[in-house]
Amino acid sequence: MEDLNPRSVLVTGSNRGIGLELVKQLVGKSNPPEWIFATCRDPEGPRAKDLKNLAARHQHRVQIIQLDTSDPSSIKAAAAKITERLNGAGLNLLFNNAGIVKESNMESETPEKMLEVYNVNVIGPMVMIQVFLPLLRKASQESALKGMSCSKAAIVNISSLCGSIADVLAWDIGQIPNYRCSKAALNMLTRCQSLRYAEDKILCIALHPGWLQTDMGNAPGTAPTTVEDGVKEILKTLAQLSEKETGTFVNWDGKPLPW
Amino acid sequence: MEDLNPRSVLVTGSNRGIGLELVKQLVGKSNPPEWIFATCRDPEGPRAKDLKNLAARHQHRVQIIQLDTSDPSSIKAAAAKITERLNGAGLNLLFNNAGIVKESNMESETPEKMLEVYNVNVIGPMVMIQVFLPLLRKASQESALKGMSCSKAAIVNISSLCGSIADVLAWDIGQIPNYRCSKAALNMLTRCQSLRYAEDKILCIALHPGWLQTDMGNAPGTAPTTVEDGVKEILKTLAQLSEKETGTFVNWDGKPLPW
Repeated sequence: MEDLNPRSVLVTGSNRGIGLELVKQLVGKSNPPEWIFATCRDPEGPRAKDLKNLAARHQHRVQIIQLDTSDPSSIKAAAAKITERLNGAGLNLLFNNAGIVKESNMESETPEKMLEVYNVNVIGPMVMIQVFLPLLRKASQESALKGMSCSKAAIVNISSLCGSIADVLAWDIGQIPNYRCSKAALNMLTRCQSLRYAEDKILCIALHPGWLQTDMGNAPGTAPTTVEDGVKEILKTLAQLSEKETGTFVNWDGKPLPW
Repeated sequence: MEDLNPRSVLVTGSNRGIGLELVKQLVGKSNPPEWIFATCRDPEGPRAKDLKNLAARHQHRVQIIQLDTSDPSSIKAAAAKITERLNGAGLNLLFNNAGIVKESNMESETPEKMLEVYNVNVIGPMVMIQVFLPLLRKASQESALKGMSCSKAAIVNISSLCGSIADVLAWDIGQIPNYRCSKAALNMLTRCQSLRYAEDKILCIALHPGWLQTDMGNAPGTAPTTVEDGVKEILKTLAQLSEKETGTFVNWDGKPLPW
């Protein structure tokens, strides 16, 4: 089985849920990355306490960086800091994990919610890649690995099967057009990124993380899987990905999903 | 062959291109609709001249109504006028045709363009249906037709194969992430509308109109088909649609398209 061996990783929205667990399990590997940039909107706020405790235990590997994905200037400031800390190295693996959802149905949906969620869930990941592209390219160019992989240079956009137009997961539980439309658009963005960055050998995938027991996943019902188990499977899947999967929509267990 | 016989039709963005041609061909039918509500942002502006001339020749059937799909209060004001003119009748067929695109590629794309295009291409059609739903429901309830059809009660969202995540039409000609992401999201909205309004027997489809010789279609290259020929085929296709196609993505010639 291939192993997942990025030297450097960035995770947005890393203070809670899937983001926090990704940082925890990556730093807990027997061969952990040298740099894990754990970004969140408000590192000094009460909701970043768990992340701060984790980082304190792994001071040299886990670096908390303030980054609001809805604010391009905040993304640029974070990229400047990260470039400095990487000190000439590239960025191997970028998780666009930060995302939001606003409770709504077809009647109660509003333009304000639609715009806010689109801004965070789609425009954020777009600007992230525009800004971090030089570091991803550098990682790809300097890697000795052949083909594409998450150990070399990869963009993992955390999407959702709720955003599959063919599947429309859990319609009966929540209609949430703001979220579904944003995730369908994020899937399209992923495809566009895969086409644009194929020549750079940067792997781009949209990932359905499963329905996990996070604050977000639990909102409408009871999620079947712990975030710990879910992220364990996700990391196994990421280790297996190659150029065959770039530009596709992948389930947490590696199965292909319909758009 | 089934015929297309709505008593009332609404077309947004009807002053040019596909919208104007839809109005022209609908009013030119041997059995035209009683009411064609031709809406556009600026009926008094120079770009609505052709529509005004057309309406002048068909004064009782073609009614020009000011409607800016990016402004919910403008949509509500238009709906109030149209409700009054329908005088108790419902609205059979609503074309969400108004749409925009901003030239861009993966490097030059901006949050501002992304938000503006999403607002017009996705949020506009969403609010349109929220506001016009009572008239669509009335048309469905009062129709003697069985099943679903464009003659009874239907929402036709003018999408684009550029918004097919599977196909990514014409990537080499234009990357335009603002447009592609908005159309993928519009396809998701269409699917959500089809699920929500199935009980009302309102047919909902996303339609790829083909690459037609309009101001918009011509921007990146030379479109292969005249808008007249394209709209002729579209109307033939719409006449054939039933509950079998609701919630799907349909080509101008009736063929199913991949999300």
